Amino acid sequence: MSGASSKTLERVIAALRGALGDEAVRTGQAIPEQAMTDWTGHAPMRPAALLLPCSTDEVARSLAICNEAGQPVVPQGGMTGLAGGAIARADDIALSLARFAGIDEIDPASATMIVRAGTTLQAAQDAASAAGFELGLDLGARGSCQIGGNLATNAGGNRVIQSGTARDQVLGLEVVLASGAVLSSMTKMTKNNTGYDLKQLFIGSEGTLGIITRAVLRLNPPRGRRHTALVAVDGYDAVVKLLRSLSARFGNDIGAFEIMWPDFFDFGVALTAHARSPFPAAHPLYALIEHAGLDTLDEGEAFFAVLAEALDAGLVRDAVLAQSVADARALWAVRECTAEFPARMDPVNFDVSLPIGLIGEFVDVCRAALDKRWPSNRSYFFGHIGDSNLHVTVDGHSIPGVAHDDVYAFVYEMLAPYGGSVSAEHGIGLLKRAYLPFSRSPEELAAMRAIKAALDPKGILNPGKVI
Amino acid sequence: MSGASSKTLERVIAALRGALGDEAVRTGQAIPEQAMTDWTGHAPMRPAALLLPCSTDEVARSLAICNEAGQPVVPQGGMTGLAGGAIARADDIALSLARFAGIDEIDPASATMIVRAGTTLQAAQDAASAAGFELGLDLGARGSCQIGGNLATNAGGNRVIQSGTARDQVLGLEVVLASGAVLSSMTKMTKNNTGYDLKQLFIGSEGTLGIITRAVLRLNPPRGRRHTALVAVDGYDAVVKLLRSLSARFGNDIGAFEIMWPDFFDFGVALTAHARSPFPAAHPLYALIEHAGLDTLDEGEAFFAVLAEALDAGLVRDAVLAQSVADARALWAVRECTAEFPARMDPVNFDVSLPIGLIGEFVDVCRAALDKRWPSNRSYFFGHIGDSNLHVTVDGHSIPGVAHDDVYAFVYEMLAPYGGSVSAEHGIGLLKRAYLPFSRSPEELAAMRAIKAALDPKGILNPGKVI
Repeated sequence: MSGASSKTLERVIAALRGALGDEAVRTGQAIPEQAMTDWTGHAPMRPAALLLPCSTDEVARSLAICNEAGQPVVPQGGMTGLAGGAIARADDIALSLARFAGIDEIDPASATMIVRAGTTLQAAQDAASAAGFELGLDLGARGSCQIGGNLATNAGGNRVIQSGTARDQVLGLEVVLASGAVLSSMTKMTKNNTGYDLKQLFIGSEGTLGIITRAVLRLNPPRGRRHTALVAVDGYDAVVKLLRSLSARFGNDIGAFEIMWPDFFDFGVALTAHARSPFPAAHPLYALIEHAGLDTLDEGEAFFAVLAEALDAGLVRDAVLAQSVADARALWAVRECTAEFPARMDPVNFDVSLPIGLIGEFVDVCRAALDKRWPSNRSYFFGHIGDSNLHVTVDGHSIPGVAHDDVYAFVYEMLAPYGGSVSAEHGIGLLKRAYLPFSRSPEELAAMRAIKAALDPKGILNPGKVI
Repeated sequence: MSGASSKTLERVIAALRGALGDEAVRTGQAIPEQAMTDWTGHAPMRPAALLLPCSTDEVARSLAICNEAGQPVVPQGGMTGLAGGAIARADDIALSLARFAGIDEIDPASATMIVRAGTTLQAAQDAASAAGFELGLDLGARGSCQIGGNLATNAGGNRVIQSGTARDQVLGLEVVLASGAVLSSMTKMTKNNTGYDLKQLFIGSEGTLGIITRAVLRLNPPRGRRHTALVAVDGYDAVVKLLRSLSARFGNDIGAFEIMWPDFFDFGVALTAHARSPFPAAHPLYALIEHAGLDTLDEGEAFFAVLAEALDAGLVRDAVLAQSVADARALWAVRECTAEFPARMDPVNFDVSLPIGLIGEFVDVCRAALDKRWPSNRSYFFGHIGDSNLHVTVDGHSIPGVAHDDVYAFVYEMLAPYGGSVSAEHGIGLLKRAYLPFSRSPEELAAMRAIKAALDPKGILNPGKVI
């Protein structure tokens, strides 16, 4: 850093202290480690300062000061991201809304909730639940991640097949622009055709266009009636047929449709308590399916009956129907072995999406190509197929000396001709920026840059991320 | 028009003829009347030319030529709009995609359809239906309106309570920018977090940011099992309770929840075949409710049973349950009396939205204020309450000498403090532009203008509309 910019930074920090008070402007050792990197652990770095504003107005004043000085600002949520999107550099000022948390209102008539950006997802879920509703968003990081980060990254998670992504939960949004202007579109209405739907721009733009401070979220009727089944099928075509027939019969009461290819399934089974497959034989493909019906109606029997019919018709080769919560947990344990990935391998993780009908073919092509290029590779394929989302994890230990970036480039290049996306849910952030052109055209990138320049002309918001 | 600009226009038209051929560039009497105004009949005007490109590439070439010359272009769909958004001025060039129609692909595995913008909604619905699916969009103008216009205006219609607005049907979009650049984001995936979700900008922006040429739409499982009931309730609180309890029990199987205040209901009844209310007594409020279940499951009995319980519990005062398609049609006939509005009055139509819990109060306040200001007024209140959408129609004949604009301003001013929107579904277009500030803040309008300037720097696309 040059002496001049160091001085600017000192002046900016002094101005911020004046505006927000010392308590809200942390520097040096007063910045907690949590602010240094996200769940990837990538390149931990202490930012020049961490701002902890307590209100929309304080965010506005912070950004006005930073924008005036051209000072980069990195918005931070719960730091549970998987793309490095919230990691600050040494000269950046990080801004966290951890102190601007809580539920401003629950409106049961509108079935809406007004949430401050620093609220954890768990707290928002609990409040919805206490009011007799359910939030359409759930993810593993719920206890740490914050609503602001969830919306800024358009988080996916466990309920997408039923309720859509984070974007689909939002009716209204309050955002502070780089200039400090507060853009308040805090509407509670499903229908509102009055000019451009500005909120959509900020959802999923990873803090590069504005800082989300509050949101109006939809509330759904609760879905507490869960029934779980693990089925084995012949191949990918059967998976698609099963998905479509369950969707035609149960609509969005299908709450999970998780596919596991054998390598992944066997890895998961080996880590369960008994280390035994629930099936007597091995099969080409496994699907973990959940029916999540409304609290008022139990369709578990109907769900199991449809699966039994599929078994009789030969569409399904074998099935285990959970008869208790413990049974269901045991089935989910296989799928949830991903939690063990970091401890048991050097995971090179892919979070891609592609048209549902092509996922089976892509897995075959991708596996064959990986085997040819790196014969010793161990790779695991699984995904939320109902959401068009495929996860691939390659164990870096199985291909010693190969850089992760080489594996990324190799797989993304294969993905492009399938009309695939390099990030289904984790976002681009810092870590996937180089791969964005595999999914977006030069015209799209140019349009993104034009919008970025229009809303953040000095480029102070999360510079170096996404585009 | 000055001689100079007239010459420019001639040059532009000549260049367009060169690029697209004479058949695709209509002028003078070769422009059909349909291109002169929309369903409002507002200020019919023959544009300087009507372009009928047959491909995305021809749209791109057309816009490149017009942009070069700074020539305004007005995109036109089926001309069924209700806000004047597609009406051209005498110096404008209109562009219709009527000749770029048809379904490019139906992908049953992804449950998606690729549609050209000039396709009528009806044709898209029929194609979805033939493939065993259903489109999540339906409106009265289905035979004439086009997918491009539906998306450009984020159309609402009959299925919003179940499937959302037009926006919610879109997975991918192809748009031509003012410059002629083709922005292709034709993805089929539910999950795709690779930079800004550009398609959202064009949906609902009424042709002011780009011209939509193709779209990837979601396909839903068909909902052919319809059951209809008309219920009478004590007041608005009971309406909200009923909506929430039906939603908790049936989720998005509730396909319609239409509320009619007595003036509207009596007007509708008087126009039915027998001109008799289905109820022996008058009631404070009426709800027409439809259960629209998946084809594979008939929950009609359960639906009627829940209404019977509500009757027993006193939440509902009286109920008529349709026992046949003819019964259902008779009940809908009351609600559909709106088709008679233009013939039987001088309708001043409002299409507003406000938080669901406040609609009852707003109706009372609004009616009292109208009665006080114009004691002779006849006004009709009804709406899609599940979508937060209220329609108000004031009969201009009942308040002779009062300008429609005075009625608009009077009602919109009342709406603003409720956090309401001046357009729930019809859009802003030309006719509501003056009222946009009742719903959007100066900061929002400034952000819209910044985005407009970034994507259409010369302002050639649908000038004078929306903002």
